[in-house]
Amino acid sequence: MSRIRIGLGIDFHQLVEGRDFWLGGVQVPHHKGALGHSDADVLLHAICDAMLGALSLGDIGVHFPDTDNTYKNIDSKILLAKCAQLIGEKGYQVVNVDSTLLLQAPKIKPYVPAMQEVIAKILHISVEDVSVKATTTEKLGFVGREEGVTAHAVVLLEHLPG
Amino acid sequence: MSRIRIGLGIDFHQLVEGRDFWLGGVQVPHHKGALGHSDADVLLHAICDAMLGALSLGDIGVHFPDTDNTYKNIDSKILLAKCAQLIGEKGYQVVNVDSTLLLQAPKIKPYVPAMQEVIAKILHISVEDVSVKATTTEKLGFVGREEGVTAHAVVLLEHLPG
Amino acid sequence: MSRIRIGLGIDFHQLVEGRDFWLGGVQVPHHKGALGHSDADVLLHAICDAMLGALSLGDIGVHFPDTDNTYKNIDSKILLAKCAQLIGEKGYQVVNVDSTLLLQAPKIKPYVPAMQEVIAKILHISVEDVSVKATTTEKLGFVGREEGVTAHAVVLLEHLPG
Repeated sequence: MSRIRIGLGIDFHQLVEGRDFWLGGVQVPHHKGALGHSDADVLLHAICDAMLGALSLGDIGVHFPDTDNTYKNIDSKILLAKCAQLIGEKGYQVVNVDSTLLLQAPKIKPYVPAMQEVIAKILHISVEDVSVKATTTEKLGFVGREEGVTAHAVVLLEHLPG
Repeated sequence: MSRIRIGLGIDFHQLVEGRDFWLGGVQVPHHKGALGHSDADVLLHAICDAMLGALSLGDIGVHFPDTDNTYKNIDSKILLAKCAQLIGEKGYQVVNVDSTLLLQAPKIKPYVPAMQEVIAKILHISVEDVSVKATTTEKLGFVGREEGVTAHAVVLLEHLPG
Repeated sequence: MSRIRIGLGIDFHQLVEGRDFWLGGVQVPHHKGALGHSDADVLLHAICDAMLGALSLGDIGVHFPDTDNTYKNIDSKILLAKCAQLIGEKGYQVVNVDSTLLLQAPKIKPYVPAMQEVIAKILHISVEDVSVKATTTEKLGFVGREEGVTAHAVVLLEHLPG
């Protein structure tokens, strides 16, 4: 396989009352949280999928099926660590991650540095190699109606020397 | 032009009763299929657009206009082969493709290996350089209501030596 | 930081009567335009975000807050030039940009060469390193109902020698 590879991940979750809201491995105070089998961390899921996709290792649904009780309410940081291990076993590491959260509320800017730290530590890269951006959809669509949250991530992977 | 280039493709089709459902060059059994001028293979169209975009060759609508009867009900594998030829003429080949299908139903996991084989063969690359992932939108939006299907694809291209 | 980096940008704006419609730095004749604090050029905003994201420099909302009167009705070409300056200060330049506009109407094909020229000039790259593609959403969702416009962009950055 080539030395440099590209990956893309996209994930969606419904927003509902009475759930904790986990984004990028950080709990964000909000009156709603994301619904899912795991902790429903849409950003970590998108990054997982981008990493798996870059090496054609399937997707998060293949590796961590939501029909498997092992993953019930699981901390998605464990899933990200598993993806980091999978690409490491193939001899690859992440060059950089860029991501965009689509959500109408709340403002996540204060939590971005903590997310970068969490993700960088799990991927064994520098915080400056992890980018988390956010945008509203200007009240358009299901994100704009605060019914759901979406994350898109791209990664560049590089084969380690030797 | 630079040796390494990035491309992005996004495509949408309505899902309607009474159409065959083509995804990644493979016919997927389902009670609905994608509506379009061609066979409406949303995944192959996204990959075509990513390849064209990486070399600023326009988009699929420019190369294969849906007002042209040549492309009426055409097998999108022919369009992908044409895109492969276009980038080959510029001296480039695909390093890897990563893609994500957004669709609520059916589960496409059983068809992914066949899709990878079809795409890899047309692009003259290895199946491990072609990634096809899928996610539902958790019943959100037009994908969640099973009114449509979306595909996103990224590609990395590399200039051939010499 | 690594020599090659990847970035992703996504932006949304509502379409309303009585606004000029700016896309890729070009005014496109249409009965609606994009609503926003600046000129609401969704394509330039997505490219800005992709450039910022590639170097983990935050996002467009961090650099050009819509609560700041400096940016009221500002020409987004000024924002793109600022992003080009920011990545230049870090020693990087754009290898290539690929982008996709999601809009139901109007057809933007006639304006694409002008957009490529505007963007290439600001980024100090060749027009063949700037790709602008467009697709409808086949009348699906808020884009299909002509309530809004979306742009996705990816960039590859490269560190300048020395």
